[in-house]
Amino acid sequence: MPFVELVSVTAVLQFFFFGAMTGRARRDSGLKAPAMTGHDGFERMYRVQMNTMEMLVALLAGLLIAGKYWPEWLVGGLGVVYVVGRFIYWRAYVAQPSTRTLGFMLSMVPTLALLLLALVGIIQTWL
Amino acid sequence: MPFVELVSVTAVLQFFFFGAMTGRARRDSGLKAPAMTGHDGFERMYRVQMNTMEMLVALLAGLLIAGKYWPEWLVGGLGVVYVVGRFIYWRAYVAQPSTRTLGFMLSMVPTLALLLLALVGIIQTWL
Amino acid sequence: MPFVELVSVTAVLQFFFFGAMTGRARRDSGLKAPAMTGHDGFERMYRVQMNTMEMLVALLAGLLIAGKYWPEWLVGGLGVVYVVGRFIYWRAYVAQPSTRTLGFMLSMVPTLALLLLALVGIIQTWL
Repeated sequence: MPFVELVSVTAVLQFFFFGAMTGRARRDSGLKAPAMTGHDGFERMYRVQMNTMEMLVALLAGLLIAGKYWPEWLVGGLGVVYVVGRFIYWRAYVAQPSTRTLGFMLSMVPTLALLLLALVGIIQTWL
Repeated sequence: MPFVELVSVTAVLQFFFFGAMTGRARRDSGLKAPAMTGHDGFERMYRVQMNTMEMLVALLAGLLIAGKYWPEWLVGGLGVVYVVGRFIYWRAYVAQPSTRTLGFMLSMVPTLALLLLALVGIIQTWL
Repeated sequence: MPFVELVSVTAVLQFFFFGAMTGRARRDSGLKAPAMTGHDGFERMYRVQMNTMEMLVALLAGLLIAGKYWPEWLVGGLGVVYVVGRFIYWRAYVAQPSTRTLGFMLSMVPTLALLLLALVGIIQTWL
């Protein structure tokens, strides 16, 4: 399933990019490790990175398992929506945390859909 | 290995549920993002979510690799113990953090067992 | 690919070890859960653990997908560099956070290399 793999790698590279942005935000903030609080811009970027990691673990499991049972365009397509949603989440959270809902939903819903597709696919093998 | 996949998806959905509980705890706490501290109930629920993510990454890797070498009932069964242990961990941590040890052990031990089973399975291929 | 699997399990066990070190640092610090701040030694160890989780998710995805397209010695070898780099990162961060760059690069660069190898491998299937 090269398309599903491509989406998986893209989602991980996006997460790496958020990690690099967090590193830059730390430098700009002047905060010294291990401090994680005390600068609003850094805290926002770090929250984007952490929330993305939470979603990414679920997404990768969903892509891997749903990809065994469903067509590649469907599974990979849901992954594309996730990646786009995460970019929207990032821009919104950094600009104004209270506007992060749209991007959050656009990445959470396809991730949940993948997990439910995986569940249905598994259960169908027993019917 | 549909049973191992089913347990994997269940563990990820449990993690999603903890994420939703963290979102609810934030609303109840009145804390505004990106703040992560300042309300004990929210901090407890967030710690449950984060500790579960730490375990989940190890669990999923263990299920995937041990599942190639060991019977499905054994690998999936250890995963079921993990999921039950995590529910106990959640209830205990939210009620009183100092009582979290039992649930922690019930999810940590099967995860470690899966990693060691994976290790033994890999090494056996070379003997 | 038993060598790639062996490296994957080793990286997860290393992460578990860091988790155990974080637990010990909490006990030594006297911090009560859910507090995550207020003791420099604990905060350093917790940052090692969290940063390792961020890398580990990317590493495992990279090992899994690059392992389908490239020789085992190359994929597994990059994983070995990651594990060594993480140990250096751990020792340096705990001793003095500002010296963590070498260990960070030694684990970040092979992880990124695996993701790029995966990307090239996927794209090559379409050429």
